[in-house]
Amino acid sequence: MPYGRIKAASLFDKVTTAEQAAQLFKDGMVVGASGFTKAGDSKVVLDALAKRAAKEAIKITLMTGASLGHDTDAKLASAGALAKRMPFQVDRVLRTAINAGEVLFIDQHLSESAELLHNRCLPPVDIAVIEAAFIEADGSIVPTTSVGNSVTFAALAKRVIIEINTAVPESIYGLHDIFQPDDYPYRNVIPIVAPENRIGRRSIPVDIHKIAAIVFTDIPDSPADVAPPDAKTTAIAGHLLRFFENEVKKGHLTDRLLPLQAGIGKVANAVLSGFGESNFYDLRMFSEVLQDSTFDLLDSGKMSFASASSITVSAPCYERVFGNLQKYKDRIVLRPQNISNTPGLIRRLGVIAINTAIEFDIYGNVNSTHISGTNIMNGIGGSGDFARNAYLSIFVSQAASKDNRISHVLPMVSHVDHTEHDVDILVTDIGLADLRGLAPRERAQAVIDHCVHPDYRDALQSYFDRARQLRGGHTPHLLEEAFSWHTRLRETGSMK
Amino acid sequence: MPYGRIKAASLFDKVTTAEQAAQLFKDGMVVGASGFTKAGDSKVVLDALAKRAAKEAIKITLMTGASLGHDTDAKLASAGALAKRMPFQVDRVLRTAINAGEVLFIDQHLSESAELLHNRCLPPVDIAVIEAAFIEADGSIVPTTSVGNSVTFAALAKRVIIEINTAVPESIYGLHDIFQPDDYPYRNVIPIVAPENRIGRRSIPVDIHKIAAIVFTDIPDSPADVAPPDAKTTAIAGHLLRFFENEVKKGHLTDRLLPLQAGIGKVANAVLSGFGESNFYDLRMFSEVLQDSTFDLLDSGKMSFASASSITVSAPCYERVFGNLQKYKDRIVLRPQNISNTPGLIRRLGVIAINTAIEFDIYGNVNSTHISGTNIMNGIGGSGDFARNAYLSIFVSQAASKDNRISHVLPMVSHVDHTEHDVDILVTDIGLADLRGLAPRERAQAVIDHCVHPDYRDALQSYFDRARQLRGGHTPHLLEEAFSWHTRLRETGSMK
Repeated sequence: MPYGRIKAASLFDKVTTAEQAAQLFKDGMVVGASGFTKAGDSKVVLDALAKRAAKEAIKITLMTGASLGHDTDAKLASAGALAKRMPFQVDRVLRTAINAGEVLFIDQHLSESAELLHNRCLPPVDIAVIEAAFIEADGSIVPTTSVGNSVTFAALAKRVIIEINTAVPESIYGLHDIFQPDDYPYRNVIPIVAPENRIGRRSIPVDIHKIAAIVFTDIPDSPADVAPPDAKTTAIAGHLLRFFENEVKKGHLTDRLLPLQAGIGKVANAVLSGFGESNFYDLRMFSEVLQDSTFDLLDSGKMSFASASSITVSAPCYERVFGNLQKYKDRIVLRPQNISNTPGLIRRLGVIAINTAIEFDIYGNVNSTHISGTNIMNGIGGSGDFARNAYLSIFVSQAASKDNRISHVLPMVSHVDHTEHDVDILVTDIGLADLRGLAPRERAQAVIDHCVHPDYRDALQSYFDRARQLRGGHTPHLLEEAFSWHTRLRETGSMK
Repeated sequence: MPYGRIKAASLFDKVTTAEQAAQLFKDGMVVGASGFTKAGDSKVVLDALAKRAAKEAIKITLMTGASLGHDTDAKLASAGALAKRMPFQVDRVLRTAINAGEVLFIDQHLSESAELLHNRCLPPVDIAVIEAAFIEADGSIVPTTSVGNSVTFAALAKRVIIEINTAVPESIYGLHDIFQPDDYPYRNVIPIVAPENRIGRRSIPVDIHKIAAIVFTDIPDSPADVAPPDAKTTAIAGHLLRFFENEVKKGHLTDRLLPLQAGIGKVANAVLSGFGESNFYDLRMFSEVLQDSTFDLLDSGKMSFASASSITVSAPCYERVFGNLQKYKDRIVLRPQNISNTPGLIRRLGVIAINTAIEFDIYGNVNSTHISGTNIMNGIGGSGDFARNAYLSIFVSQAASKDNRISHVLPMVSHVDHTEHDVDILVTDIGLADLRGLAPRERAQAVIDHCVHPDYRDALQSYFDRARQLRGGHTPHLLEEAFSWHTRLRETGSMK
C-alpha cells in the first residue's frame, strides 16, 4: 500500500477496501462525489456501491461536479442505486432511466450547486467521496484532474471517503487553486481579475475527524473521445474565425481576443484547433474544461494561460500532460466550479463563450438539453453561466442532421435553456448570424438568411412571413404551428 | 433663468430652449436619454423632438435607462420619431407600434445595455440627453431621481444635452454613487460588499466640451400609480411572508433576511408593505427602484438601507422624500443600473429577488414579457439580472384573471424569459410552490398542488398525467397540445 500518499499518520487506520467503504452508505443518503467531465471521479467506491445496490435495496441522491467516467452512472442507474441525480450527466443508461422517470434528475447551472448546498436550498450531504493525489499532514486533500464541487462536499459532508489514485503523480500538487466564497451575509470579493490569478490554497480543507475511509486505486480517468474535425465542424470553425478576424479589423477586439470559454465536444475542439492556424496570439482561457485542443494551443505558443475546473483529454494527450507536468504547471490552473463558472468573474473578465446548441430558433432562443421538448440529453452544464454573462455569447450547431431529416434551426425551440436576451452570435455549417443590436424581427431574418440549411429555408421563411402577417407582434409566432416541425418528425421521421 | 444651477460659467452660453436643442438631432441618430422607471427622464427636449418629428421626417434610435414618464414614448411613437427603442418601455402607444412592427424594440437585461455600448456591440451614441439637478464647475452632471444608463451615455455620446430640472432640490447632491467598471481587458473588482457601500463619485463625469445645449425645466417626474393591496395581492404577500418566517424557523435565514429586490407594481408593494407588519427588522434593499413601500419601511424603522437606480413614488411620497431629503440621505443610494443590476453583486450580496410573471408553467419556466407568445407588454427589465443570480429567485402572479377566463399557470409558457433553472419559488393568490431541490416531474406536481386556480387544476393535472403516460421524458410534454390553452383563448375568449 502506498502509505506515503497519506502524510497524516493518524489516518493510516482509515485505509480500507472499496467494498468496506461502500458499506458506509445508507438508503436515502445524499452523496457528494468528485468528478467533472469524467475527470477526477471516484473509480472504485461508487462502483462498489453499484455492486452492493444490485443485491440489496439502497438508493441515494448523488451529486457530483459534472459528468462521471467509467460507466459509473450507468452501473449505479442499472443497479437502481439512484433516487436523484444532479447537476449534470452524459450517460446513455442513466439518461434512459431519467427519461423513463425512474431516476429524478436536477439539471443545474454548474456554478450553482455549491451555492444551493451552502444556502441549504438542497438537503445536506451525508457522505463525500473525493479522489485525491495525496492527503496532506492536516488531512486536507490534494485533488487530481478536477476540482468540481469537491471543496463544498468536503466542507459540508458529515463523513468523507477519500480515493487516493496512485495513477496521478504527486507532482500535480500546485496545479489547483482552492478558494471558496464566504457564507452570506458576509461574502467578500472573489479577487480574480485575470485568468492566471491564483487566490487560494493548494489543497481542499477537510476536518480530519470526518475522514471515514481511505481507499487506494490506480485506475486512470476515462479518456476523452476526440473526434477529428469533419466538413461541418471545419465550416463552423471557419465562420467563427473569420468573424473574430473581422472584429479585430473593426477595432472591437485585439489579436489577443479576450479569455475564451469553449464547451466540450468536437465543434469546440475544431474552433480551438482553428486558432492554431490563425494570427491570434497570447490567448487565454477561462473555461470549465481543458481539452486536447487547449494543450495544442499551449504547446504551439498561441495560448499563454488556461483556467478551468478539470482536464479531460484523450489518452495520448494525458500522457503528454502528466508526463511533462512541470512544463504546464505555471500555465494552467484548476479551480472549483463555483469559481470557474461564477457569473461575476465571467463578466469581469469579458469572456468569449462558445457553446453547443441542440437546436435554436429564428429569434435566437437556444435549447441545449432536450430532444423534442421532453427527453433530456445531458444537461445545461455551464453553458448558462457563461452565455448570460459573457462579453460575447456564441452558440454553434450543425444546420441539419440525419440525412437532413432534422433541422436544428426551427420556428420555435421545444425547450428553452438560453433566451434570446442571452444569445449574440449563432453559427452553423451554413453560416453565421450576428444578432447584436437586432430586434426580434431582424434576428429572424438574419437566422433565416445565414444559418438554416437550404432544404428548410423556404419553410422557415414562410413560417416567419405568415406569423408576421397573421399575428404580428414583437415576436411573431403561430402558436398552433410553432412545434409542427417537431410533431412531424415524431409522426413521419422527418421535419420535411 | 436659474443660472446658479450651472457652476461652470463657461457653459452659460449653452443655455437654450428645448426647441433649439431638439434641432441637434438628425435623422438616423442614436440618442441615449436619462430616465429609469419614469424617474429622472427628459421632460422637454424629447417632447420637442416629438413635435419636430410630427412635421418633418426624422427617426432616431432611442436608448434609455428603462421606462420614461410623461407619455414621452407615446408622443415619439405617434410622431414616427422612433426607428428603434431599447432596453425597456411601459407605454401603451409605443407597445402598439412595436407589436405592429412599426418600431423595432430590443428587450434587454437592464444590466447589459451599458456593457453592450462599451463593448461596441451596439452602434455608437450620437447625443445624450440627461436630466440634472445642477452642473458642477467641471461640467460634471449631478443627476436627479435616477442614474440609469446616464453615466455610459455621457461618457460615450459625441454631444450632450442637459436638462436642468429646478423642481429637484440641489440638496439631492450626495444621493448618487457614480462608479463605472473599467473597460476590457483591464476591468477590476466592483468593491461593493453591502448595499450601503459607496464606492464612487457624486456626479457624472462628462467632457465639458461635449456639452452642446443646456435647457431649464421645472416639470416633476410622472408620479407612480400606487394601487392599494387587494385580496389577491394580499394573499400573495401573506404566502410569501409565511414562507420567509418558516425559513427563519428552519435556520436558513435570520430575522434580518438578506438584501431584498422587488420588481415594480402592486404585488411588490403589497409584499413590502407586509414586512411592515412582520417581525423582520434591519432589512436592506439592493434593488432597481425605490417605491412608496420602501420609504414606508425606512420610516417605520424596519428597513435600514436601500440601494437602487431610481426613486419612483406617488406624488404624496415624493413630497415626503424630497421635503425631508436629509432624513433619508444616509439611508438610500442611487447607482448606475449596470451596478444596481450587475450579476456579480447580486450573487455576492445574496439578494432575495421578487419579480412578477405574466404566466408560468408547470415546470417553472416564466414568461415576463409576452402575451400569447407574440405581443410584448413591457420587457424583461431587471428581472433576469436578479432571478439568475439571486440567493432566492421568487416569481409572483395572480393564478387567474378576467373572470378566470385566463389561467396564468399553464402547461407551457408561450414565451420563456426565465428558465426553470432560474426559478426557486412560485407564488399565486392560491398558494406557494417551493421548487428548490425538485426535479421537473416533482416541480410540476408542486405547481399543480399549490399555485393553479381551482378552475384549471383538473385540466392541468390531466395534461401532466397524459404527458407522462404518452411521452414520458425528463420534462413530459405533449407538444401538439402545449399551447392549446393559448389558442383556445384566442379562438373562444377563454382558456376553459
